[in-house]
Amino acid sequence: MADFDSIASATVAVGERREPAFVHDDDVAAATAKLAGFTDRHGTRRPNVLVILMDDVGWGDFGCYGGGVAVGAATPNIDSLARRGMLLTSAYSEPSCTPSRATLLTGRLPMRHGLQRPPMYGEPGGLEGEITLAALLSDAGYVTQCVGKWHLGENRDSQPQHVGFDDFYGFLSVSDMYTEWRDPYFFPEIVYSRARTEWVENQAFNKSFVHATRGGDVEEVAEVTIPVLSELDQRWCAYSEAFLRRMAGGEEPWFLYHNTRGAHFDNYPHEDYLGRSPAKHPYKDTIIELDDIVGRLVAVLEETGQLDDTIIMVTSDNGPEMETWPDAAYTPFRCAKGSTWEGGVRVPFVASWPGMIDAGRVDDGIFDFNDVLPTVLTLAGAADAVPSDRFVDGIDQSSFLLAPQGRSNRKYHYYWLGQSFSALRCGEYKFMLNALGDDVVSQGDVHGTGGFSGVFHKFPYGKLFNLYLDPKEQHSYMIRKLAYQQALVGGVRNHLMSFAPPNQGKLVVGLNV
Amino acid sequence: MADFDSIASATVAVGERREPAFVHDDDVAAATAKLAGFTDRHGTRRPNVLVILMDDVGWGDFGCYGGGVAVGAATPNIDSLARRGMLLTSAYSEPSCTPSRATLLTGRLPMRHGLQRPPMYGEPGGLEGEITLAALLSDAGYVTQCVGKWHLGENRDSQPQHVGFDDFYGFLSVSDMYTEWRDPYFFPEIVYSRARTEWVENQAFNKSFVHATRGGDVEEVAEVTIPVLSELDQRWCAYSEAFLRRMAGGEEPWFLYHNTRGAHFDNYPHEDYLGRSPAKHPYKDTIIELDDIVGRLVAVLEETGQLDDTIIMVTSDNGPEMETWPDAAYTPFRCAKGSTWEGGVRVPFVASWPGMIDAGRVDDGIFDFNDVLPTVLTLAGAADAVPSDRFVDGIDQSSFLLAPQGRSNRKYHYYWLGQSFSALRCGEYKFMLNALGDDVVSQGDVHGTGGFSGVFHKFPYGKLFNLYLDPKEQHSYMIRKLAYQQALVGGVRNHLMSFAPPNQGKLVVGLNV
Repeated sequence: MADFDSIASATVAVGERREPAFVHDDDVAAATAKLAGFTDRHGTRRPNVLVILMDDVGWGDFGCYGGGVAVGAATPNIDSLARRGMLLTSAYSEPSCTPSRATLLTGRLPMRHGLQRPPMYGEPGGLEGEITLAALLSDAGYVTQCVGKWHLGENRDSQPQHVGFDDFYGFLSVSDMYTEWRDPYFFPEIVYSRARTEWVENQAFNKSFVHATRGGDVEEVAEVTIPVLSELDQRWCAYSEAFLRRMAGGEEPWFLYHNTRGAHFDNYPHEDYLGRSPAKHPYKDTIIELDDIVGRLVAVLEETGQLDDTIIMVTSDNGPEMETWPDAAYTPFRCAKGSTWEGGVRVPFVASWPGMIDAGRVDDGIFDFNDVLPTVLTLAGAADAVPSDRFVDGIDQSSFLLAPQGRSNRKYHYYWLGQSFSALRCGEYKFMLNALGDDVVSQGDVHGTGGFSGVFHKFPYGKLFNLYLDPKEQHSYMIRKLAYQQALVGGVRNHLMSFAPPNQGKLVVGLNV
Repeated sequence: MADFDSIASATVAVGERREPAFVHDDDVAAATAKLAGFTDRHGTRRPNVLVILMDDVGWGDFGCYGGGVAVGAATPNIDSLARRGMLLTSAYSEPSCTPSRATLLTGRLPMRHGLQRPPMYGEPGGLEGEITLAALLSDAGYVTQCVGKWHLGENRDSQPQHVGFDDFYGFLSVSDMYTEWRDPYFFPEIVYSRARTEWVENQAFNKSFVHATRGGDVEEVAEVTIPVLSELDQRWCAYSEAFLRRMAGGEEPWFLYHNTRGAHFDNYPHEDYLGRSPAKHPYKDTIIELDDIVGRLVAVLEETGQLDDTIIMVTSDNGPEMETWPDAAYTPFRCAKGSTWEGGVRVPFVASWPGMIDAGRVDDGIFDFNDVLPTVLTLAGAADAVPSDRFVDGIDQSSFLLAPQGRSNRKYHYYWLGQSFSALRCGEYKFMLNALGDDVVSQGDVHGTGGFSGVFHKFPYGKLFNLYLDPKEQHSYMIRKLAYQQALVGGVRNHLMSFAPPNQGKLVVGLNV
């Protein structure tokens, strides 16, 4: 095996409109053999896919990432899943919810799919025109189920049942949009003003959680008042459990995209969970509830004999929203949701598939949300279904996950702040050109809490952080590592060129670095 | 079982000159039964005690604390030891080396034993007049061995072989004192000046590592040049391995206090370890070396049939020294060595004893370095040997460690900054009155890196941090938690009163908060 090094080794082209990748022949051979073994055991039936996507949960919240009991809420079910599978320590989302979710489902960066920030209170924005993982899996014979938070546009054409899901049971927007204005603690000026209450109620956004089936219209299940919201994660879990039981023993493989309501502000945990965490705080009680939900879904898979046939991924859509502290997550990294510091985008990511992903793995290889689509398609035997009419940023990471000690296929992670290219990671190095500063803070009494409230900074000469020696991004030492500058700048340049025609980025970005 | 809560429950007096403790009757009964079982199996032979104390290693360095591969150096041996035993997430050292080590060996705070900061280049300071754990275990029939770094005073009366150890093989001071002035990178003005080199060499400090036996004088083994230093951890490990083999099957129980050279700056790992870590940096290579050493010592215990008879504790003497970055550790917490922010004093602590400490435990109960002495004495059947002629801050935590899901016996951790009382922790709350600020930084380009270079701040009204909701101590919310203020201030007052006569503090502290 050749000496491999992230920064020194070359990628190969894997398609005309694809991000170049590392291809490790030995890993590919091992992964292919494992998939062949799966086929030997299961015939043409492909593996099921369960994605559990949490909301605003931090890298450090789970015990397996150094959180758990240390931060007032144990997560035994998630920790156990990680021990039986693989813990990714350098998995990246986008800086906020909607961009992350659209990236996960399309395999493309927000600068391509266009969902660059979360739509609020009925604002437009959506997935129309994009090709989702659900649609591609559906074409490949999968039953596709979406449960829980959507937040990829309320407009008809971007609702889940119109972009590839057979069934949807959840809400179209984001937790706080349903309850914030109903809570006198946060909005006394609305709650105690009939005029303002009516004004909010008359705004064009859906105030209910809904059900829909493929191609149909949404039907309201219930208006999401605060008491209803507090029960959503339980109701959604029950819906997913029923789906899993229904699928057991069936002919068709399935894709369940389960999106929890928790732990997005404002957290009103189910009454059974109030005070259940040692921290006895709504955020932490919600973590206990979410961990239980992971445990319940895994238990149903086990009980129905589907666990060995199912790849499970558990992750979060971005870092902690710190402006709502103390209703907030924990990340050991710098800054928070909304930023491209590690605190904003480095998320927990557990991948488990007994017999296929080796137990007990912990790997720091870079894994991007946009890798989910091509990776899952390979596992589904539909690698060729990755769209070729548009640029796809995602890389097939199946050999990373399946080969024993498989290495990441990704050379670079690209950090974007809306329409500004922010940074590039390669190996342990992060080369940063723009960032939201967290040194000007809107609340709290010290630095490091920002995120959306930060000030935009440009770093004309670039900063270079070593994420192994300096995980908290406190010491730029670019001046000491100029040997890498050309490689890093080249990585940025090649990436920005991928937005030039004919690669169909929705915007063409100049070399504005 | 009564509802227990750290802040709400009352401690009991356990001795006239002792820190009050929580006594959990059910835990005590379970621990007593386990110890009786041990005696049934081993007769009068007491358990062995192995303390592995690392230097300047951070809470976050090990994989089991969320570090490991995520920060460029896997620690499989330590992680495995933690899985087979107990991981403490709220273990506290003092803010720097010498105070921590003296506290561990005496069960007393630096304000009582008097070693309030590390002696440098032959400065006076020492243990004379104190009673050490080694002396007490020796009285109880233990063979006592000290290996590696001492740094509790070079003067004869505070050398290890004069304060309770049968044998000592190591150096009397601290790593950088031996090599810093020999390295042209750090001290060109000494290395390239014959006059200054002679001036340093003529200073009265011991430049060699030494060997000594009980009551004798130290014999120089070798002058600690840089090449010698790079081999010390290997030589010390080999010495400890030989000790463990010699003890196997013997009549007497033993106490091995193994103090690594690593990973104190400046790190020059053994040549076999150069580039061994994914980070390929001397600090990280040293972590790989230290993890191997833990593995080797455990392997010898296993091979010689002593593993079940030995309680092993692995910890570090304080948080990361960040002023020497990149030759520095990782903590997710605020600030660094030298401070009383969590980054300075919250240390990794793994306790393992197969069959006696339940495997897989992770517990956030407060555990203080000064608890080691009374806890170990209880395990050694010598609980009554805790000195009663002076105030002992340590609490017997044997029921915490041995009972299944045992709870900490400690209500408060007291943070001292030299002679200034800094903060008190109770449960998840940290009440802070003084601190070294890390908002004025001597190097690097952002906040949060300080430590010794910080500026002393007084907080006249006190700050209150919730370490579960705010592990990084960014949001004081005292104004919202005044219900606790009286209890917290009372905790401080009672602690300060313990320094009044007749409790034999070396200094009497006024209520200067």
